[in-house]
Amino acid sequence: MEKNKNATLDMAELQQDRVEIAAGGTVSALERWLAQKLAELGGASAVDLVLWNGDEIKQREGKPVARVIIRDRGALFKLLVDPGLHFGDLYSVGRVEIEGDLVQFLEVAYRAVTDMSRRPLLKRVQALTQQRPRRNTLHGSRSNIHHHYDIGNDFYQLWLDREMQYTCAYFPDPAMTLEQAQLAKLEHVCRKLRLTRGERVVEAGCGWGGLARYMARQYGVRVRSYNISHEQIVYARAKAKAEGLDKLVEYVEDDYRNINGSYDAFVSVGMLEHVGPENYRELGEVVHRSLNPRGRGLIHSIGRNSPGLMNAWIEKRIFPGACPPSLMQMMDIFEPRGFSVLDVENLREHYVLTLRHWLARYESHAEHIERTFDETFVRAWRLYLAGSIAAFTTSSLQLFQVAFARPNVRDLPWNRAYLYR
Amino acid sequence: MEKNKNATLDMAELQQDRVEIAAGGTVSALERWLAQKLAELGGASAVDLVLWNGDEIKQREGKPVARVIIRDRGALFKLLVDPGLHFGDLYSVGRVEIEGDLVQFLEVAYRAVTDMSRRPLLKRVQALTQQRPRRNTLHGSRSNIHHHYDIGNDFYQLWLDREMQYTCAYFPDPAMTLEQAQLAKLEHVCRKLRLTRGERVVEAGCGWGGLARYMARQYGVRVRSYNISHEQIVYARAKAKAEGLDKLVEYVEDDYRNINGSYDAFVSVGMLEHVGPENYRELGEVVHRSLNPRGRGLIHSIGRNSPGLMNAWIEKRIFPGACPPSLMQMMDIFEPRGFSVLDVENLREHYVLTLRHWLARYESHAEHIERTFDETFVRAWRLYLAGSIAAFTTSSLQLFQVAFARPNVRDLPWNRAYLYR
Repeated sequence: MEKNKNATLDMAELQQDRVEIAAGGTVSALERWLAQKLAELGGASAVDLVLWNGDEIKQREGKPVARVIIRDRGALFKLLVDPGLHFGDLYSVGRVEIEGDLVQFLEVAYRAVTDMSRRPLLKRVQALTQQRPRRNTLHGSRSNIHHHYDIGNDFYQLWLDREMQYTCAYFPDPAMTLEQAQLAKLEHVCRKLRLTRGERVVEAGCGWGGLARYMARQYGVRVRSYNISHEQIVYARAKAKAEGLDKLVEYVEDDYRNINGSYDAFVSVGMLEHVGPENYRELGEVVHRSLNPRGRGLIHSIGRNSPGLMNAWIEKRIFPGACPPSLMQMMDIFEPRGFSVLDVENLREHYVLTLRHWLARYESHAEHIERTFDETFVRAWRLYLAGSIAAFTTSSLQLFQVAFARPNVRDLPWNRAYLYR
Repeated sequence: MEKNKNATLDMAELQQDRVEIAAGGTVSALERWLAQKLAELGGASAVDLVLWNGDEIKQREGKPVARVIIRDRGALFKLLVDPGLHFGDLYSVGRVEIEGDLVQFLEVAYRAVTDMSRRPLLKRVQALTQQRPRRNTLHGSRSNIHHHYDIGNDFYQLWLDREMQYTCAYFPDPAMTLEQAQLAKLEHVCRKLRLTRGERVVEAGCGWGGLARYMARQYGVRVRSYNISHEQIVYARAKAKAEGLDKLVEYVEDDYRNINGSYDAFVSVGMLEHVGPENYRELGEVVHRSLNPRGRGLIHSIGRNSPGLMNAWIEKRIFPGACPPSLMQMMDIFEPRGFSVLDVENLREHYVLTLRHWLARYESHAEHIERTFDETFVRAWRLYLAGSIAAFTTSSLQLFQVAFARPNVRDLPWNRAYLYR
C-alpha cells in the first residue's frame, strides 16, 4: 500500500494538535467544575471522566460504559466549546482516550446530543453555530470527493468486500457474511429497478463500479456510470475489462450534472449524501431529462428522521460536503417533476451490521494501516467507523432506498413478493 | 333505503341549474370559435364536441374516445371559465352529456389538465384562481365529514364490501374479488404494524369500524377507534357487539385531535385526506403523545406526486375539505418529532381496481338509488367514481401506505418477506 500524500496532507493540521499536549499539571477548582458540567452533558450517562492529574469524576455508582481520559486542560476547554467538532480531533491525536467499548461510548454521546437538540433553545443556538457543509459546486464536489475516495484503492480493499462496495449492504438474514450481503444488496437494487435484458441504465456515482458490472452480468443491461473520483474510475474500468464486461459497461469520469442520453433506468447508490439538499432540484432535472417515458429509478442514500447536519467532525475530516437528507428533503428530487414514488425502504439496521463487519476487518489490519499512514490516521478512521455504528444504532442516521418511476408507468407489480423469491 | 335530507339538500343549488337549460337555438360564429378553443384544451385528444344545434366539432378523423354533447350556450361558457369546477355540475344535471366510455373520456380530461398545469404560467394562474379547500377546524371537520359519510349506511352498503371499507383495497392478485381484496388490505395493514396479542392500538378515523374489529378478532389487540361520523359510529358499535368484540374494541365519537391514552400502535386508514396539510404537524403531535416508547404506526392515504388540490368539483360536491397530500407534505407528520419512516408503499393501481369494483356494483343498483335520491344524485356519484378511476389511471392521484416507528424501535424485521407469506 502506497503512502498517500493526499490523506496525510489532510491530517497535517490535526497533527499540530499533538504538539499542544501538556500532560500533567494540577486541576483547578474551576477546571473540575467545568469537567463536572461536561460530564453532565451526557445526562444520566454511565460515563466517567478522568482528568490529566488522575482525578476522577463519576456520574453514578457501578461500572461505567466507558471512561473518558482527558489528557490536558486544552482538551477539556475544546470539548466544552464544541464537543461534536473537537472530540474527533482530540481522540485522533490521543489527547482524549476512551477506556471501554468505543461504540457504546459513542452511543451514549449520540443519545446525549439527540436529547439536547430536542430542547428548542439549544436547537436554535446550534443552528446558529453549526458550520454549513462545504458547497458541492462542480469544482467543490471534485475536491470534496477527492478528499475521501482517492485515499487509495489499496486502503479500502483491506476492509471492504470483494466488489469494493462502500455503501450499506443488505442482510435479509443477519447471519450472512459481508460478501453475501453486498451481493444481496446488488440483487435487491436490480429487482427494485425491474431490469430487463437490453435495457439502458445510467448510474450516478458508481464507486468502484460493482453495481454496474453486476447489472450487466446478471441482467444483460447496458450501463453508463458516472463518477468524479479518478482512482475509482481507473479501478472500475480495469475490472470491467478483466471480466469481459467493457462492451456493456461504460465508466465516465464526470459529474452527475453532465449526464446525457436517454435511459430506461436511473440508479444512484450512496451518492446523494454528497450532493447537498440545495442541489436536489437540479438532480431531479437530470433524472427527468435522462429517463424515457417508461423510465424508473432508485436512489439509495444515508438519511435522517428530520433535517439536520452531519456530525461536524465527520464533515470536516472524513466527508467534506456530506449531508444526509430527510425524506422530506429527498422529495425535492421527485416532486417538482411529478415522479411517482413507489417504494421507500429503511435499511438502517443493515448499516449497523455492515459497519460492524467493516470495523472488524479494519481492526484486523490496523497495524498495517498504521505503518502506511500513521497512528493518528488509524485512530481517526476507527472513530469514524465506530461513530457511524453509533449514529445508526441511535437512529441519528437512517438508510433509505427510494424506488420511483415516471408517473404514467402502469405495469407495476401487484405486490412486492418478487423481491423476496 | 331512506330518502336522505342531507344528501338532497347538498344538491339543491345544483338542481337549480337544471332550470337554466335553454336547449336549441342557433350557434354564433363566436360560440363556435369558443367551442373550438374548448376542444383544443384537450390537446390532440380523441374527443368530439357536439353543440346544442347539432353542430359537431371534430378534433381529428376516426372514431373518438367519446363525444361531449353541450346542451346549451350557458354550459359552454361555464366549461370555458372553469371546466374542473363546472363540468361536474353540468354533467350531473344533464346539461352536458358524454357518449362513449365515461372513464376513458375523463382520462383524456385528466391528462389535458396535467399537461396544462405543467406550463409554468398556467400553473401560477391556477394557483391564484383555485379555491382553497374548506378548512378542517374542529367544527369544520364535523360539517365536512357529515356531508359525505352521513348520506346513509344503506347507500354505501349497496356497493361497498361486507366490512364496509370505503378505502383502497389490496389486490396482491388482481383476480381477487373485492371482498377478498378488502380482507387482504386489513391483513396487510396489521402485518405492517406487527401487532402482538394484548397490545393497545388507537385508530384515527375508523369508518364503519372494519379494521378495528379485524385487529381485535385476528390479533387479539385492544383497539380504541375515533370517528366524528355519527352514523358510522352507531353502525360500528352495533356490529362489534353482534360479533362479541365490544370488550376489545371501543368506538369513540370524537375528533382525532382529542385522542388520549398511551398505545403500542397508531393507525389511520383513509382519514388523512380529510385532515388538510396545515394540520399535519398537529396530527404528528397527537401521534407523538399517543405512542409509547416502542410505538409504531401506519398511515394510509390518497396522495399525489406533487402538492396540489383535489379536483374543485369533487371538493365542492363530494368531499368538502379534502386534500390528498404529496409525500413531502406527509413528512410534516413524522419529521418534527423524529419518527423513523420504515416503509412507504404506493398502491395506486390497487385503487383503480377497487374503484372499478365499486362502480360496477354502483351501476347495478343505479335504478334503486335513483328511486331513493334522484337522477342528479345518481349522475353525480357516477361521475365521482368514474372520475376517481381516471385520476388514478392517469397518476393524478396515488395511494400511500406509510409505516413508521419511534426512532429507537430497533427490533425491525430484516426483510419484508413476512408481509407476503
